[in-house]
Amino acid sequence: MKKDVEERAIAVPGFRFGAAACGIKASGLADVGVVACDRPATAAAAFTRNLFRAAPVVVARERLRSGRLQAIAVNSGNANACTGRRGLADARRTCDVAARALAVAPALVAPASTGIIGVPLPMAELENGIAVAVASAEQGGLWRFARAIMTSDAFPKVASETVAIGRRRVTLAGIAKGAGMIAPDMATLLVFFLTDAALRRREAAAIARAVCSESFNELSVDGDTSTNDSLFLLAGGAAENDPPAAGSAAFRALERAACRIGTELARQVAMDGEGATKVVAIEVTGAPSASAARRVARTVGGSTLVKTAFFGSDPNWGRIACAIGYAGVSVDPDRVAIRIGDAVVFRRGTGVAEGREAARAAMADGEFTVRIDLASGSGRARFLTSDLSHDYVEFNSAYTT
Amino acid sequence: MKKDVEERAIAVPGFRFGAAACGIKASGLADVGVVACDRPATAAAAFTRNLFRAAPVVVARERLRSGRLQAIAVNSGNANACTGRRGLADARRTCDVAARALAVAPALVAPASTGIIGVPLPMAELENGIAVAVASAEQGGLWRFARAIMTSDAFPKVASETVAIGRRRVTLAGIAKGAGMIAPDMATLLVFFLTDAALRRREAAAIARAVCSESFNELSVDGDTSTNDSLFLLAGGAAENDPPAAGSAAFRALERAACRIGTELARQVAMDGEGATKVVAIEVTGAPSASAARRVARTVGGSTLVKTAFFGSDPNWGRIACAIGYAGVSVDPDRVAIRIGDAVVFRRGTGVAEGREAARAAMADGEFTVRIDLASGSGRARFLTSDLSHDYVEFNSAYTT
Repeated sequence: MKKDVEERAIAVPGFRFGAAACGIKASGLADVGVVACDRPATAAAAFTRNLFRAAPVVVARERLRSGRLQAIAVNSGNANACTGRRGLADARRTCDVAARALAVAPALVAPASTGIIGVPLPMAELENGIAVAVASAEQGGLWRFARAIMTSDAFPKVASETVAIGRRRVTLAGIAKGAGMIAPDMATLLVFFLTDAALRRREAAAIARAVCSESFNELSVDGDTSTNDSLFLLAGGAAENDPPAAGSAAFRALERAACRIGTELARQVAMDGEGATKVVAIEVTGAPSASAARRVARTVGGSTLVKTAFFGSDPNWGRIACAIGYAGVSVDPDRVAIRIGDAVVFRRGTGVAEGREAARAAMADGEFTVRIDLASGSGRARFLTSDLSHDYVEFNSAYTT
Repeated sequence: MKKDVEERAIAVPGFRFGAAACGIKASGLADVGVVACDRPATAAAAFTRNLFRAAPVVVARERLRSGRLQAIAVNSGNANACTGRRGLADARRTCDVAARALAVAPALVAPASTGIIGVPLPMAELENGIAVAVASAEQGGLWRFARAIMTSDAFPKVASETVAIGRRRVTLAGIAKGAGMIAPDMATLLVFFLTDAALRRREAAAIARAVCSESFNELSVDGDTSTNDSLFLLAGGAAENDPPAAGSAAFRALERAACRIGTELARQVAMDGEGATKVVAIEVTGAPSASAARRVARTVGGSTLVKTAFFGSDPNWGRIACAIGYAGVSVDPDRVAIRIGDAVVFRRGTGVAEGREAARAAMADGEFTVRIDLASGSGRARFLTSDLSHDYVEFNSAYTT
């Protein structure tokens, strides 16, 4: 789908962004991005639950233990995953090189990578790229950074808000990369939240957790994550506010802004599905539990038959019902109701013919919601998916290993 | 894929097969099939685990309680699923009509349906079709029956063997329909096993169970089944053998023959995947448990990214490793080995470049095996899948609801 985001200038006081093309991508497009803060920032993060954890994830987890980071060095085009000991050494070296160029402590730099799996990083090129990216770093470089971390993304993904903390006004910006291989097969999702707010470690971690559970987990539930998925939150503190306490009004305002930004970035990622023409939210209510709701939402949203029906604007509730039926959740089929847009298409164990045309009209839109009420409890979940089109197969069968 | 089965004549003494075109299918192709035995047969069956159980499945389960059936009336083009009370009445009426035409007790007739969900059966047409099918029933009608039960199938699926039971020689024939929507989204799978062997109920049930666990569950594990999946085994007894006891040599010979037929039918179903160009077996060994092995095999075999890589003959072990990593099974990535054909492509946490060309050559073949050794136990599983091609999307986005 086309992007609908305007590239308005965004600056986060205290942060600089650099980018470079070092040759990892054969296309010659930018493949190195560096974000750096003018001082050590409070840092929180969330990482992939995939058992095959890429080297940069292993190293970033180590670095995050201190709760402080000053820079992140990112490369696209190569995931540095399944690369053994050499991969770990390369990830550490990436941090060292960035640290030297930025004149900060290596322990305050984390790495992130995305791209092909199983190929060692071309370190000579990457080291050169980091130097160029650092040299180019500027407060106005956010969009360049956002483009440099893209792989199969069709457009850069950025969202931001300003929030009042006491009498200070702080900026919170989110930058993401990720496209296409959303459920059942995750592409790497890299997300960077940057704010000039001063935050304590505990509150930063709480905001990172809230963002994950309320937005990105809608793209990837129950551990369906790639080798490299990482979300970072850096709070630099240039706003010099008093760090808000968890539960305070200022904290909640910041948390809500972060979740809105996360939801918007997740929407942009779903919209950028390879060959996707539609973004569809699967909302499940009335499940026996929240995890049961997630399981149903993910099974329906991950069904290739359902996704191809979305592509064809076909209100095929039979495929949705069938997927609910094999989701492994105990529900009474006669109590299940399915709505597409606002139209009820299935109720009391059978289809509702009257809803068909309204459902079809809703599906013709680029974004619509499928609502499934299981009437068996209070568990609820939301899952974003896209349709499955010809272009998806074209892209993924041709994608170079 | 093209079928590679020759339509050689198969007769199962005591059984007659009829077929008719009654207009359920707009194409005018045969859509009613009847199989009848000359006497009440020992019957066993296995049915879908989907919560949305179609009306014919509900009725067939009732009929199977007696352990005896004399006929099965099948229609294709309409699944009689999600059709409420009317659907149940229609399924019973289908049996009644077939029973009257065959002059057998209605309780000895079971129904089976496959096709679109949520539309009531056109009973006037179906009743007429059953009458025509019964009138046409003959011992040599097996292939006509096999074609009459097809929906999106490109070819009829039949396999048979003869087995010695003492001094008698018995025939065991299997007929299946099912195509394409194999994992993660099952199309209806209907399977009929017919033999002139005399079997007691307990042994018939044991053979049905063995066939399910050793072959058809390779297509559909952990409950990923459609609304209508049914497997029937009818043992007519025309061979007048002494019914073999479970565990006897004759019983084991029959059981092994049934499993071979089941495996061959499962292969034909996988080969008939909509738009499929390849059949791929995913073999998992060394899992912590059999269910863990099934979970890994199903996650890899169900991954759309892996399946599109199969289509492109791309030995993309990174996608396979990633799917193993999110399968929800605890394994040590460094111990995992992945082979495509006979070529090792992944070992000790990283790719094996030497294996790439041999793997690519194996994948260029229409049928190959991906072997995953988790080296974490003795659990093993096998899962059949197909590749995901352009034609899959074409077919499933256009398929009429």
